Amino acid sequence: MINKLTKRIKETGAPVVVGLDPMLQYIPEYILAGAVSEKGESLEAASDAVFEYNKGIIDAICDIVPAVKPQIAMYEQFGIPGLYAFKRTVDYSHSKGLIVIGDVKRGDIGSTSEAYAAAHLGKVRVGTASFKPFDEDFATVNPYLGSDGVKPFIKICEEEKKGLFILVKTSNPSSGEFQDRLIDGKPLYEWVARQVDSWGSSLMGDSYSYIGAVVGATYPETGKILRGIMPKAFILVPGYGAQGGKGKDLAHFFNDDGLGAIVNSSRGIIAAWKQEKYASFGERGYAEAARAAAKDMIEDIQQALESRH
Amino acid sequence: MINKLTKRIKETGAPVVVGLDPMLQYIPEYILAGAVSEKGESLEAASDAVFEYNKGIIDAICDIVPAVKPQIAMYEQFGIPGLYAFKRTVDYSHSKGLIVIGDVKRGDIGSTSEAYAAAHLGKVRVGTASFKPFDEDFATVNPYLGSDGVKPFIKICEEEKKGLFILVKTSNPSSGEFQDRLIDGKPLYEWVARQVDSWGSSLMGDSYSYIGAVVGATYPETGKILRGIMPKAFILVPGYGAQGGKGKDLAHFFNDDGLGAIVNSSRGIIAAWKQEKYASFGERGYAEAARAAAKDMIEDIQQALESRH
Repeated sequence: MINKLTKRIKETGAPVVVGLDPMLQYIPEYILAGAVSEKGESLEAASDAVFEYNKGIIDAICDIVPAVKPQIAMYEQFGIPGLYAFKRTVDYSHSKGLIVIGDVKRGDIGSTSEAYAAAHLGKVRVGTASFKPFDEDFATVNPYLGSDGVKPFIKICEEEKKGLFILVKTSNPSSGEFQDRLIDGKPLYEWVARQVDSWGSSLMGDSYSYIGAVVGATYPETGKILRGIMPKAFILVPGYGAQGGKGKDLAHFFNDDGLGAIVNSSRGIIAAWKQEKYASFGERGYAEAARAAAKDMIEDIQQALESRH
Repeated sequence: MINKLTKRIKETGAPVVVGLDPMLQYIPEYILAGAVSEKGESLEAASDAVFEYNKGIIDAICDIVPAVKPQIAMYEQFGIPGLYAFKRTVDYSHSKGLIVIGDVKRGDIGSTSEAYAAAHLGKVRVGTASFKPFDEDFATVNPYLGSDGVKPFIKICEEEKKGLFILVKTSNPSSGEFQDRLIDGKPLYEWVARQVDSWGSSLMGDSYSYIGAVVGATYPETGKILRGIMPKAFILVPGYGAQGGKGKDLAHFFNDDGLGAIVNSSRGIIAAWKQEKYASFGERGYAEAARAAAKDMIEDIQQALESRH
């Protein structure tokens, strides 16, 4: 899967992933009203509206970006029907040729991480039959529990040829509270990064490892250091756009081959129709607005990569 | 909810929570076969079998313990149908008067943690209606992202009078890999514990805070130190029994009032019928075996608490 991701990034020229994190306030009123007229004010209506909205965006961006990243919390908040919309979003994205990064940030003790890994990247057996419950291509993982919480995910990645992005330095303002604390003179995130490099070294694709990292766009200087510590890890970079990250901040997250990072934008793309810049698309043009915003983001990042030479 | 937990622990004399972490291999063959005969070899059959099995255990232990702790990964591995079994388990536990600790170990950036908090402890609005998606009483939370990942959970706890157990020192063998690293001379878990104490200080029940901590039974010396750092935090203690923790290791997790900790056992109770000690119950007596194992565990802990005086 890491080879496929690399290939699709080269083909599209877009080291960009669209975060499908639908909040109800991003969804045009007519979509929610349509779902409510069918199913009443219910979690089922919210689920239908979320999927309908995602479908429009997926159709509009599937030829210009390699991947989408649904954030499962935004689905889990609508209970079982919401998780059904998550599953439909994963499946529909696959049908359109997109790689799916499940932003699930799971992580637990060994036997429990095994279950999460099966849920999101692997399969489960019931009697003689086997099933792929959610079937994303990559998942994000929280490292706080250490190696035995991460290794069950790595094992499934090896079996299924899938991948991980492990939280190293997150994009939020208080990420430094624990992640930046110095241990033997180096911040915790560097120690986690060393482990990511080590976990990934035995699970290499053609040029990058199956095991990547999450490093926030909001900390560009940190990105530069972490790029050096994990030369073979793909870095998933959240925090572009709405959270404050800009193209020029991102050049250091990439290797000299122009690869090694994939930048996420969620709100900035999926809710573009609500921004003044894209308001002319109107609510019925929300998907085209998302496409325009994705194109602008791709251009911003391409320029940043070119201007560093 | 922390007051209710304290009250129920006093009433039952059992600072014990039963971990409802059903793996298919724990479930008696006749239960799975029954579900498969109705729904074929499917995720739906696994879901029915899991719930049926849980129901038997809940019926057998609901009068002797205050709480259950379903581990969501064990349900998530069966996809949407599995999560439906999770929801049915939460609801059925409530109908039997049990407090439910959702072992979900969620944690993300602020807006995303908000969605997780709504999913598990709060409510969501769809139009003019509101819904409680999973509706546990407590949830476990991963602190790696720092305060702004935790505070949305705290806010919902205040609104809904619910509670948290924040991962401080986990029970698994490699928990020390990051959690034990020294920062200014103290291990990371102590810094997290200080934050738990501070987050919890503004959200007090009658004698304990709404905001508790997870500290593994497998690290009793650490438990003693952390008890001192977080005097008002209830400590959820996993790792008893199958993971190696024993009653005598647990005394230091409690305060002098005999409260302040609740010890979890999963496998050791729910799969007791598979142990030699309880084998005479047979597979059809799996629920009675669980009751017997829960009683033995309660006695072990009561003795440990008495013998410390």
